[in-house]
Amino acid sequence: MTEPIAGEHLRKSILFFSEFDDPRKWRGLLERGLPQFRVECWPEIKDPSDVEYAVVWNPPRDCFKSLVNIKAIFSLGAGVDSLLADNSIPADIPIVRLLDAGLARQMSHYAIYGVLHFQRQFFEYRRLQAQEKWSPLPVTLANSFTVGVLGFGTIGRVIATDLENLGFPVIGWANSSKSNVDTEVYVGMTELDDFLASSQLVINVLPLTAETRGLCDERFFSRMRPGSYFINLGRGGHVIESDLEKAIDSGRLAGAMLDVFASEPLSPKSSFWKRESVLITPHISGVTLAEEASDQIISNICLIESRQSPNGVVDRERGY
Amino acid sequence: MTEPIAGEHLRKSILFFSEFDDPRKWRGLLERGLPQFRVECWPEIKDPSDVEYAVVWNPPRDCFKSLVNIKAIFSLGAGVDSLLADNSIPADIPIVRLLDAGLARQMSHYAIYGVLHFQRQFFEYRRLQAQEKWSPLPVTLANSFTVGVLGFGTIGRVIATDLENLGFPVIGWANSSKSNVDTEVYVGMTELDDFLASSQLVINVLPLTAETRGLCDERFFSRMRPGSYFINLGRGGHVIESDLEKAIDSGRLAGAMLDVFASEPLSPKSSFWKRESVLITPHISGVTLAEEASDQIISNICLIESRQSPNGVVDRERGY
Repeated sequence: MTEPIAGEHLRKSILFFSEFDDPRKWRGLLERGLPQFRVECWPEIKDPSDVEYAVVWNPPRDCFKSLVNIKAIFSLGAGVDSLLADNSIPADIPIVRLLDAGLARQMSHYAIYGVLHFQRQFFEYRRLQAQEKWSPLPVTLANSFTVGVLGFGTIGRVIATDLENLGFPVIGWANSSKSNVDTEVYVGMTELDDFLASSQLVINVLPLTAETRGLCDERFFSRMRPGSYFINLGRGGHVIESDLEKAIDSGRLAGAMLDVFASEPLSPKSSFWKRESVLITPHISGVTLAEEASDQIISNICLIESRQSPNGVVDRERGY
Repeated sequence: MTEPIAGEHLRKSILFFSEFDDPRKWRGLLERGLPQFRVECWPEIKDPSDVEYAVVWNPPRDCFKSLVNIKAIFSLGAGVDSLLADNSIPADIPIVRLLDAGLARQMSHYAIYGVLHFQRQFFEYRRLQAQEKWSPLPVTLANSFTVGVLGFGTIGRVIATDLENLGFPVIGWANSSKSNVDTEVYVGMTELDDFLASSQLVINVLPLTAETRGLCDERFFSRMRPGSYFINLGRGGHVIESDLEKAIDSGRLAGAMLDVFASEPLSPKSSFWKRESVLITPHISGVTLAEEASDQIISNICLIESRQSPNGVVDRERGY
């Protein structure tokens, strides 16, 4: 980041921050699409009052304090809960999230892998291989293995469609009723128990809001079917991790696949690492694709510059 | 098998043999659909000359010798190579294989799991989990991960369609040119090298014939892309296992998923068991579903009884 910046002479700037995305790549993409701006990477900011937009993932808490001329903040991830919790962002500054940008497809593939991992008992075959045992196991057919998709927004719908196309029965659960959906969607807390009792496997893709934080607790797991499975690619904050551990230890859950955790990176002390029936990945179920994401952000900035509304503005009340 | 047989008074019989399927279940299904026959399970045959049909999987070699009135033999698996190699079956007796019966879908799910296992680097994450390491790896997108399907019959086509629907580029290879196919299919030995050089991952679903036996040898693996992957759900006889081991050890192949082997069950001495980059399953990629398979066999027997041709007769020259 020490090479000269192409647009250094420009006054207006876009702030970029992410520990997981390549700042040079992003600077190139944004400066090509928005030649009237220079792109600065936190904390190397010439003059905070030049910053009109921010493109961020998990920014440091004090990142926005001095940005007195900020017009909008773009989140590089699907989850915006940490931005909503940042009180240094004025209430009238729009927080904009990405609409898909390849995330949904990637997350759907992750979910399909997890569903097949448990339905086809690949986790048992892995154990048998370690013991050098050749032992075909009984078959549960896809068409009698109901998958419950917890959260039925863009990502949940793609997952449901992909699984249905592969022959799995799918049901959904959402906070509010959904239109234009072929899948049977259970709605609200009153229908949550029925949803859980009907699912051989539950995939969490909820947004993290005040209503959904800690939803997957002891009570939740106790309503799941004995011997069922849980996949979390929503947020760590949805799950009370000690309750999930108990549900696994008691045999209520036969297995879990976890991509997100209350604290990331997952602590080396976590007991999840060592559990045979738990598959752990380091928050990789959906990785933002720079080309697709920057296209969306560029066209949204153009909309704002021409005094129109950007697409994907987060409803702060609702939380997503 | 000692309880009284419902149709014991009947003269004509159907012989059943499989070590992997439940004979009671099959007897029930066949006797319900074909009440004019009794079903006998090898070796408990009252009078070999009563046997008019056989429904078998991996039968003992001398099974057909005394069956002087046999009219057709039905294979319970997709592979008929062992039946074709049995000289005790007269050349004019049709050998009939199942057309799908749920096999293709199951095998496609198996293939999808394997493709995602390697494309999304779940095998690396499994290793990292064992080391309690949180370490996101670089992403290869599905749309730049070309899957080559070796063998483009019923099963190969279902696999290709399912993977294409998930966003993977798919190419095929077949012995002879295929019609009514949207996928690009390479044809014959002259195009095999191009097919292999274009595939990040090769899935073998060929039938085992004189032409395809031992096809996956040192030369074959040397034409695959460095760092590519191999999934075998065809037959063990397609693969020279020592050549596959060398291809893995040399790093030419970055991983393999194997469901079939030259000798099954796989010997405890095989070095495949211990390889971190090899996933082993005990010939479970496609399990014949008794209900669907028996429906097909029953309607084929009805066709033969009414002097019509059954569906799925194996071309003995071609080998499938």
